[in-house]
Amino acid sequence: MYLTQGLHRSLQLQPERTATHFRGRYRTYREFGDRVARLAGALQKLGMRANERVSMLALNSDHYLEYMMGVWWGGGVLNPVNIRWSVPEIVYSLDDCDTGILLIDDHFLRMAEGIAQRARRKPVFIYAGEGQTPAGMLGLEALIAETAPVEDAGRGGNDLAAIMYTGGTTGMPKGVMQSHLNLWASGVQRAADSALVRNSITLHAAPLFHTAAMARAVMQFAAGEAHAVIPMFDAREVLETIEREKVAELLLVPTMIHALLMHPDFDKYDISSLRRMAYGASPISAAVLELAMDRMPQVEFFHAYGLTEASPVVSVNPPENHREQGRESGLYRSAGKPCFGIHVKVVDDHGQEVPRGEVGEIILRGANVMQGYWNKPEETAAVLKKGWLHTGDGAYMNDEGYLFIVDRMKDMIVSGGENVFSAEVENALARHPAVAMCAVIGIPDERWGEAVHALVVAKPGASATEEEIRAHCRELIAGYKCPKTVEFRSELPLSGAGKILKKDLRAPFWQGRTRAVN
Amino acid sequence: MYLTQGLHRSLQLQPERTATHFRGRYRTYREFGDRVARLAGALQKLGMRANERVSMLALNSDHYLEYMMGVWWGGGVLNPVNIRWSVPEIVYSLDDCDTGILLIDDHFLRMAEGIAQRARRKPVFIYAGEGQTPAGMLGLEALIAETAPVEDAGRGGNDLAAIMYTGGTTGMPKGVMQSHLNLWASGVQRAADSALVRNSITLHAAPLFHTAAMARAVMQFAAGEAHAVIPMFDAREVLETIEREKVAELLLVPTMIHALLMHPDFDKYDISSLRRMAYGASPISAAVLELAMDRMPQVEFFHAYGLTEASPVVSVNPPENHREQGRESGLYRSAGKPCFGIHVKVVDDHGQEVPRGEVGEIILRGANVMQGYWNKPEETAAVLKKGWLHTGDGAYMNDEGYLFIVDRMKDMIVSGGENVFSAEVENALARHPAVAMCAVIGIPDERWGEAVHALVVAKPGASATEEEIRAHCRELIAGYKCPKTVEFRSELPLSGAGKILKKDLRAPFWQGRTRAVN
Repeated sequence: MYLTQGLHRSLQLQPERTATHFRGRYRTYREFGDRVARLAGALQKLGMRANERVSMLALNSDHYLEYMMGVWWGGGVLNPVNIRWSVPEIVYSLDDCDTGILLIDDHFLRMAEGIAQRARRKPVFIYAGEGQTPAGMLGLEALIAETAPVEDAGRGGNDLAAIMYTGGTTGMPKGVMQSHLNLWASGVQRAADSALVRNSITLHAAPLFHTAAMARAVMQFAAGEAHAVIPMFDAREVLETIEREKVAELLLVPTMIHALLMHPDFDKYDISSLRRMAYGASPISAAVLELAMDRMPQVEFFHAYGLTEASPVVSVNPPENHREQGRESGLYRSAGKPCFGIHVKVVDDHGQEVPRGEVGEIILRGANVMQGYWNKPEETAAVLKKGWLHTGDGAYMNDEGYLFIVDRMKDMIVSGGENVFSAEVENALARHPAVAMCAVIGIPDERWGEAVHALVVAKPGASATEEEIRAHCRELIAGYKCPKTVEFRSELPLSGAGKILKKDLRAPFWQGRTRAVN
Repeated sequence: MYLTQGLHRSLQLQPERTATHFRGRYRTYREFGDRVARLAGALQKLGMRANERVSMLALNSDHYLEYMMGVWWGGGVLNPVNIRWSVPEIVYSLDDCDTGILLIDDHFLRMAEGIAQRARRKPVFIYAGEGQTPAGMLGLEALIAETAPVEDAGRGGNDLAAIMYTGGTTGMPKGVMQSHLNLWASGVQRAADSALVRNSITLHAAPLFHTAAMARAVMQFAAGEAHAVIPMFDAREVLETIEREKVAELLLVPTMIHALLMHPDFDKYDISSLRRMAYGASPISAAVLELAMDRMPQVEFFHAYGLTEASPVVSVNPPENHREQGRESGLYRSAGKPCFGIHVKVVDDHGQEVPRGEVGEIILRGANVMQGYWNKPEETAAVLKKGWLHTGDGAYMNDEGYLFIVDRMKDMIVSGGENVFSAEVENALARHPAVAMCAVIGIPDERWGEAVHALVVAKPGASATEEEIRAHCRELIAGYKCPKTVEFRSELPLSGAGKILKKDLRAPFWQGRTRAVN
């Protein structure tokens, strides 16, 4: 983690939002970020090296926030000076942490001469006030105007972020060394604390060997809450256990939610204790969601997107987007916005961010990103590049910053030069009343390279013809995305985590052949 | 941070709460923690060294949770085995991460022989099922029964916590290395995300050089929210700025809250946008809190306790304890429970935890604890001992885990051998209708060693005699705690953070003398 992360995220997601308000002066995140990147460059030119302290002696203003972010962006360390101190105390602290640069405002100009005379290392003064820059000082505005913005120096984690002097009860003040991790942890712990559901029992119905269920158990222990466990997903035992243990929270995958809702004895159990249901692995279909909201109106739904390499959660789509408005706008199909502390980009093959709305690969940074693959340096290097985890997941981000996972990149079907994302076709199929479960894969096709092939499990007692299914899809999605062929099966192979094993579905079709997209 | 932290906290705060529910078998946190500490010892005896992998091949059960915590408690690394795998895949993963111990349940016993035959390093099998332990295996229950509990091995941070195999799209599965920090960050980020107030503007009225305001700015940036700034606390400018910028959040100290409420033009401003007010540095008096709740009924109050060395937040007392019930029970005076991720103990001079309700020193561990004091190894060693930060703050913890700060240890007054905590006396004084601000210090006394001395600023237009003040106190607190002398002042010296500078108040009385408690 790194303390400029939120600024990067704001520059990405909401550049026109007002970042600072100060006595009638307003700066957007775009303006603020530009000033920060320029100030960072100016400080570097003035000699601020990595881990070098830069001090500020000033009352509060928007410039104080620029100082914070500018120093961190440039790789330096804050030393905010106590505004009640006398010149000797200030000089002591500047000397103690060997500060070379001091920002100062109008209120403290009268102390500048005394500081310059007494300090062991006479600091460069940067005037951050509202008037004319005094002789012998550099002006903050001039520095920002004349310096080009620089790249973030990329400090974080255990790197030092600030030295905060604290009054000693005896002797001289002591400089408390706070790292990026320290400050981040303090904030995130406090925020997490107020979000926890108190006195909750979670039910582990998804397999605990899998990262999603294990991470949930980790959090439940961290919060000091309780665990109910069943050996494996079984709709009846889930319902029984919710009723008996008064379960409040549950993690499932959409196929399990569907099985739960369709259980013939669903109505016989009292599951009114259930408050929150998280699901992952794939978006939920509108049909299943509507049924779920109808049958469990008291439950809040969260869609978590993640992967083992991210330990695992990357983004969460909150309950409000699952309600009627979210269903109408299509926001229920989003994987949500990147979580606090995680920086996500959607990039092209060259690692460049693509325009909003265009599909690319999700890459991300954060304290949650794995250390690597055990004993596999090459595979690790292929996905961890300059601190960014390359997920292999295809997605686009809309203008509000919501992520929409279109597919695993490797599941993308290339048919006649067009990219077809299976998830989109599957969503269309799932809306047909006879479809209980479905999967869409690419199979070899002489003419198109790959053809879109659908595998469908029908609901008990329901049926449809191949032509009915294709006609239904044509009403919802473009012709080239519609399945060329539809195959009915009694079941589909599922992974331990409840994901449909497309690799297994594809294998028989591709024996002896090579897919262009793998 | 370390993933057994929450378990330690539960053992401390709620040992009798049910931790695990499994098919009618219930274990409290006390029972669960005891089993975990014994299992950890058994695993160590079987050869589990620090960083060594231990695997489990089982359906979900309460034993799976014991395995997680037991391995971590003993210093090892989890390798949860995919329950859908064939013997060759399982053997590949055990070999790949060099596992020496495998827990197995009834469901997978049929695979044990194949695994034992093929694995490069034949694992020790621990039977974690519900029947008789098969020949050639050790029984989980027997191991737990016959092994003494061991101390937590103390792994955490960047130490490896789990190797989670993820299906390769090509080739063999890869073991994703998740550290304690990775798993902790994933959980805490997700929780923090749902706690953030969206589209909020915070007002920086407390000085930004101080760790509390700076940490708040850090969080506001992390969340991508907006900052309003004023140069320094001024009641009128605070009110004006809330109205003009529609400020939602504000951090103050109680003396500032009081000044705000007492401003003659308080009612002329529209501050209805204000939603949350955090305060720190000292508990709020009941009188100020009641006034605040009366005049700003829409505002939620949070009391944050912290110190620079903790970057800074340690605990938060939430809004519900500030409402009528909390005021009646006295819970409003608490500093709250330790935040998520922070392990707090109240200890005696020998570092031993004191019984609930007894006063001791607060010590704590967490990712928020500073790296040390800059260039001061001795001072650092004096407060950072074996990973625990010694705060010098005196407090007691009640049975529910709520912390009550009684005083800085060094502010404790020792009078006639009795310990008097200034805060308690100040709380009594503050309830007198004529008292606007007060401070209680120990001054030299021939007979008692120290005498309790009160300094009082009267409210404008109000007055009281020394004897009236003392009589008022005698009604509220024990006689030996009551001020022997009361001195009226027009103001009290405040630190940059708004704390009353008791050191300055005490100094003239103690010139040339030495206090027993310093």
